[in-house]
Amino acid sequence: MKNLKSPNIAIIGTGSTKFGELFDQSYDDLVREAATLAMTDAGVTMDMIGAAWLSTAFPEIGVFKGRSGMDLAEPLSMYDIPVTRVSNFCASGGDAIRNAVNALLAHDCDVVMALGVEKLRDRTPQDSIVRMMVEYTHPYFQKGFTAAGTFAVYANKHFEKYGVTREDLARVSVKNHHNGTLNEKAHHRRELTVEQVLASPMVADPLTVMDCCPTTDGASCVIMVRAEDVDKAKHNPVHIKGIGLNVATGWDLPFFDPHYDFLSFQATKNAAKVAYAQAGITDPLKEIDLAEVHDCFSIVELLTYEDLGFCGAGEAKDMIRSNTTALGGEIPVNVSGGLLSCGHPVGATGIRMVVEVADHLRNRAGKRQVKGAKVGLTQNIGGPGAIASVMVLGLD
Amino acid sequence: MKNLKSPNIAIIGTGSTKFGELFDQSYDDLVREAATLAMTDAGVTMDMIGAAWLSTAFPEIGVFKGRSGMDLAEPLSMYDIPVTRVSNFCASGGDAIRNAVNALLAHDCDVVMALGVEKLRDRTPQDSIVRMMVEYTHPYFQKGFTAAGTFAVYANKHFEKYGVTREDLARVSVKNHHNGTLNEKAHHRRELTVEQVLASPMVADPLTVMDCCPTTDGASCVIMVRAEDVDKAKHNPVHIKGIGLNVATGWDLPFFDPHYDFLSFQATKNAAKVAYAQAGITDPLKEIDLAEVHDCFSIVELLTYEDLGFCGAGEAKDMIRSNTTALGGEIPVNVSGGLLSCGHPVGATGIRMVVEVADHLRNRAGKRQVKGAKVGLTQNIGGPGAIASVMVLGLD
Repeated sequence: MKNLKSPNIAIIGTGSTKFGELFDQSYDDLVREAATLAMTDAGVTMDMIGAAWLSTAFPEIGVFKGRSGMDLAEPLSMYDIPVTRVSNFCASGGDAIRNAVNALLAHDCDVVMALGVEKLRDRTPQDSIVRMMVEYTHPYFQKGFTAAGTFAVYANKHFEKYGVTREDLARVSVKNHHNGTLNEKAHHRRELTVEQVLASPMVADPLTVMDCCPTTDGASCVIMVRAEDVDKAKHNPVHIKGIGLNVATGWDLPFFDPHYDFLSFQATKNAAKVAYAQAGITDPLKEIDLAEVHDCFSIVELLTYEDLGFCGAGEAKDMIRSNTTALGGEIPVNVSGGLLSCGHPVGATGIRMVVEVADHLRNRAGKRQVKGAKVGLTQNIGGPGAIASVMVLGLD
Repeated sequence: MKNLKSPNIAIIGTGSTKFGELFDQSYDDLVREAATLAMTDAGVTMDMIGAAWLSTAFPEIGVFKGRSGMDLAEPLSMYDIPVTRVSNFCASGGDAIRNAVNALLAHDCDVVMALGVEKLRDRTPQDSIVRMMVEYTHPYFQKGFTAAGTFAVYANKHFEKYGVTREDLARVSVKNHHNGTLNEKAHHRRELTVEQVLASPMVADPLTVMDCCPTTDGASCVIMVRAEDVDKAKHNPVHIKGIGLNVATGWDLPFFDPHYDFLSFQATKNAAKVAYAQAGITDPLKEIDLAEVHDCFSIVELLTYEDLGFCGAGEAKDMIRSNTTALGGEIPVNVSGGLLSCGHPVGATGIRMVVEVADHLRNRAGKRQVKGAKVGLTQNIGGPGAIASVMVLGLD
């Protein structure tokens, strides 16, 4: 039986580095910056951290960073505590938070850190994430298929079944790049037009370069305590009301099942079901004020509207056409700029989303503030659509 | 403040594959075998598992196995639950169990699986663990240093400071290989003499081949529930009375601190302190009936006696000379054969130790049964002596 009780864990501090091509910052530098920002925000010192979780999905081969909890402890000289490294592809950050939440609820410690970090840019060609995927991965990828190629099939199926168009995909990228111009920590900050997205080089038909998120360096961190340990004089907390992690398929789907429909991700649906039940969400569109979702490719944001129940099957195109998910719309999605503008340092992304939603709920998101936001959601999908993390954050 | 309350989580099922050169079994095959053994032993079916943790420290590059929880879910078709992959070098298995324990105590689920698996043998030379360490790791290793070379310094320092001899190291290997002859799942099963160990090829002076554990394939699994959920008519549980995971140093020690003494591992001491406090252990030598410790190299078993408080500093040599840690001695250590005889599939080893100790406490360890064993310990040390896991198991 699934746990449908809200964890109600309080996030008391958050921090993110700038996301981008951070050639002048090492993995350790990124860890230090994100951790220091979050601890300063929380008003906690390092000796108060009882345990920590490190999310890195693709450890740097050249310098061996990210394979163990040591790589979070050492840059901070934060020793004599447990530090766990978790990896779950693009859901790594959410899973680091989940295990940290469990440790608090287990009363294994009182203050926890979850930090995600990834260096993807300054790698040798031998060590690049694309080469790793193509040469060292599942036989499917070794046949020349890529992540973009996989998600392109979802796009084409949505074209065929639901009448989604290339312009609809482009609208996602235009929206998120606009939002990113308001976020000084985003990787790519420039306005785009639908025409520019359509005219950019084709990666995997129908996805152009501007339908694909960049590979990026960055780190994000949250500090959490149990709700009853919040110091109201000092903290301005945001609470994790629901958290779901779900593995729903393997490599078998989507690649080897001829009946697979390429329309949605069961993992997102399953994870959302748990997170919604815990948080008491019954009408996501009405009850959620903003969402950060996994727009690794433009099509994924669209189908995620449907997987999360923001609309019915086939209706995502209407949401993007009507600006329902734009800043100022009924449910702004990827106000940060999303992966398309912020970039996607894989282990950091899930935590970066929580930092963003927390900033809105704490009314400190600056020019892109969603006014009066009280409930927010984050979602990631990882691997071959196999693993999803969904969180619902609220004010108390 | 550290949590000093016993988790008292019940292990209700355990299982291990044969450890060895398992060229005829894939990563997935090993997962299936260990999980099936443990679930059968526990009398639980897969639909009862509420969440799972996968421990793999060195994912297979060639087939991309072990980077996410999906690689535990897919071989079992165990979907619609959270599955986390943890990696913490040689402490990965203990950390998988620790996070699973927290999830139970958090009431996030009711039945959990922790499974460790590693395929180290049938790799291409490009993908071998030694080449990975030498070419793709910390600059220290890139200068040609190796794990054996590092631990050899500890051995030489113990020679110089405490009068440990090469024969003392050999006695560890002789003891553990003898124990391994009684364990049909051990990798190398043959009696050795001190003379044979000394005469075997030198790897890093004073460590010969027979002072070094082999690289090995294998998988181990445990199924756990909260103590109050044990069905006494059905289960014969063993309880986790104390569990400590500790990151105590980075790469900085032992490699870059000229004052470092190369005599002990602070991480083991720190983790043991927590596990002992939780379990109420005040006199380890008297209160612990058997221990599985991390004899990756013979010297490590010796210094671990001291780190765990089985004896004082410099006294480990007396324990091995007097057969105190032999089967039938006061505190048998590595009755399974240890890493030296069982081999060391990194992600599996910590869980394999728990399977071994549980078998003794459940009085089903066959020819190597430690008679009347009621309390057992497991210990791993990972990375550059940086990360340790210590568990104390008891009967209730």
